[in-house]
Amino acid sequence: MGWNRVAVIGGGITEFGELFDQELEQLAADAYIQALNSVDKGIDPNAIQAGYFGTVMGTLQGNEIPSGAVLANAIGLVGKPVTRIENGCPTGSEAVRQGCLAVASGVFDLVAVVGAEKLRELPTKDSLLESGRLGHPTLMYARTAATLFAPAATRHMYEYGTTREHMAAVVVKNRENGSLNPKAQRQSQVTVEEVLDSPLVCTPFNVLDCCPQTDGAAAVILCNAEIAERYSDNPVMVAGFGAATENLFIHEKVDQTGFAATQEAARVAYAMAGISPKELDLAEVHDCFSATEIINYEDLGFCEKGAGGRMVENGETKRSGRLPVSASGGLLAKGHPVGATGVSQIVEICNQLLGRAEAQQVEIRNGYGLQHNIGGYSCAVSNVTILSGSPN
Amino acid sequence: MGWNRVAVIGGGITEFGELFDQELEQLAADAYIQALNSVDKGIDPNAIQAGYFGTVMGTLQGNEIPSGAVLANAIGLVGKPVTRIENGCPTGSEAVRQGCLAVASGVFDLVAVVGAEKLRELPTKDSLLESGRLGHPTLMYARTAATLFAPAATRHMYEYGTTREHMAAVVVKNRENGSLNPKAQRQSQVTVEEVLDSPLVCTPFNVLDCCPQTDGAAAVILCNAEIAERYSDNPVMVAGFGAATENLFIHEKVDQTGFAATQEAARVAYAMAGISPKELDLAEVHDCFSATEIINYEDLGFCEKGAGGRMVENGETKRSGRLPVSASGGLLAKGHPVGATGVSQIVEICNQLLGRAEAQQVEIRNGYGLQHNIGGYSCAVSNVTILSGSPN
Repeated sequence: MGWNRVAVIGGGITEFGELFDQELEQLAADAYIQALNSVDKGIDPNAIQAGYFGTVMGTLQGNEIPSGAVLANAIGLVGKPVTRIENGCPTGSEAVRQGCLAVASGVFDLVAVVGAEKLRELPTKDSLLESGRLGHPTLMYARTAATLFAPAATRHMYEYGTTREHMAAVVVKNRENGSLNPKAQRQSQVTVEEVLDSPLVCTPFNVLDCCPQTDGAAAVILCNAEIAERYSDNPVMVAGFGAATENLFIHEKVDQTGFAATQEAARVAYAMAGISPKELDLAEVHDCFSATEIINYEDLGFCEKGAGGRMVENGETKRSGRLPVSASGGLLAKGHPVGATGVSQIVEICNQLLGRAEAQQVEIRNGYGLQHNIGGYSCAVSNVTILSGSPN
Repeated sequence: MGWNRVAVIGGGITEFGELFDQELEQLAADAYIQALNSVDKGIDPNAIQAGYFGTVMGTLQGNEIPSGAVLANAIGLVGKPVTRIENGCPTGSEAVRQGCLAVASGVFDLVAVVGAEKLRELPTKDSLLESGRLGHPTLMYARTAATLFAPAATRHMYEYGTTREHMAAVVVKNRENGSLNPKAQRQSQVTVEEVLDSPLVCTPFNVLDCCPQTDGAAAVILCNAEIAERYSDNPVMVAGFGAATENLFIHEKVDQTGFAATQEAARVAYAMAGISPKELDLAEVHDCFSATEIINYEDLGFCEKGAGGRMVENGETKRSGRLPVSASGGLLAKGHPVGATGVSQIVEICNQLLGRAEAQQVEIRNGYGLQHNIGGYSCAVSNVTILSGSPN
């Protein structure tokens, strides 16, 4: 059941954090080498036929035309086709989706996907927050990442009784998970009170409700499923994926308490995988802000509309809960190096499905995990990827 | 013979030029609507399942995260997956290649690819010339588009006796072709003397050796070849394509008088199409500078190494020659709105193969046309697309 035409045979993630001592290219190479080394039966790097480079800010300087050649040079794919993908916050997962399409086309059997980002040393004028605006003279005034997500959060509070305590419970959960992840940017735990008492950024978000800006990279090696056994006795399969777009301006949104792009991407991905949300063993969702995770639960079908706050309150999404969400620590703890984020989520899920997630390991029953991103101008792009696999 | 798994069933190109009165989104929509309207048997826009958005500078403001959602909103694909591709100067042709892979994967039957760029009203600091540098503290100093291509031109003069008159002959040919193209940015013709007497930009290039910066857009509709007859009795087929990367720094280049990325992309594309250069009826190549076209002839196998100057001198690449090159006017006359350029070349070739190129029409014998781009930092990315078709 499911699409299963592409296998993930390797994956790697760098340390996430404030990595002033490493350039974008070094981070990309680190993640890629980890991915190559993780291939169970080994792989000759020369066998990789094409590359995908997910990056939003591009190079350290934030210049506009990194192109795939920057990755090709960084990881030793010179000569081969390498494509740069930029699709807002889902950039990494979108690069993986393009890699899957390329393999499924039959043109390539082995494709590398690397997402990488340097966000910590950009000048303010080039920062992601500053870029998160379309430039409409009035509608987009003071538009930042926080103000993109805040209206849905406040409306969700009004419509469904979601509270600041629910949001803080997301942060507490993900920071606890992150404290077990040696690569996470934020290793410390926090309490509900600390979240509620932290400085206001944009109602209803305090600073601890917001994910950090992060440097980091992640990589996966994708393989034609028909030949995956050459590289692994137990490869993880791409069971399905979906991507979707939404209207750019808030007054055009169909749903003011959810993200239509997520809903549509999830619908397509579940249909392709042939499963319902009930069959998921875990998920890594886009918790760029605390309330985003609550909304994601609903958009992804983990619970009824409006029940997201209670879902986290009841502990259902803890590592020991019925559907662990962001066992890695999520964006809130692990960090959010945009181009790398989606790729890293896919690596985390592969490790979980194979029983290799060490201290973060959750119980694997049905063998399905879901990855999710939402972002771009006005939360207008989303990707969902469903992976299947199980421990040997 | 050839790959032939994807058909081009429609194409459109906007006016190219200094279009202060139109936004990026308007240009994209104009090209897309033209492409839809060009489908022989008509098409319901709702049948389009996915989109690819080729753009380098992104939005009018040059912000970094346009994402596919900007195109989705501009052309009515909201809800569907739309992916932004940026791969230096081959951005448009790379977006088409990704669209082809997506259709060949079996996941989508109908895909729209739109390339669009606004280069004329960017502040100098955000200009493409300024962005054409990697940021290396010394190696890339004073690195602009002209200085990226000039060393190969001067070395070609030294090694092969290529002259400034050869280069000027490229300009004269392409400007003459452009004078027949009502959408070209430069409609006037020039003489060899005018090229040689125009102001110096960077040895050996005078200003008339350089393509202009351009606003414009182009679009194609790609279709699973198996169902293309629903939309056209005579679709153009994608016979093959290749993309390749090269080392980023000039001291690392294998070939100082040619572009290794072009050579490799061409090798892959010819093999996929199952043809040799001799079977081509026409080509649209990346003539960003006059000498680039001469080098392209050699890299693409149109003539022996070092014979490119004589090829243009002998008139072999005129519209009436044995292999017409850039009958549209090329980048030198038509203009170079980066994300749109490659897409527009593919539309031009489709029109030529179908006998619909009006005043620019060349003779179609074997039914093959080739499209080519080279660019990115240090001429390190290239795409070649080979199309097959013939007039009804």
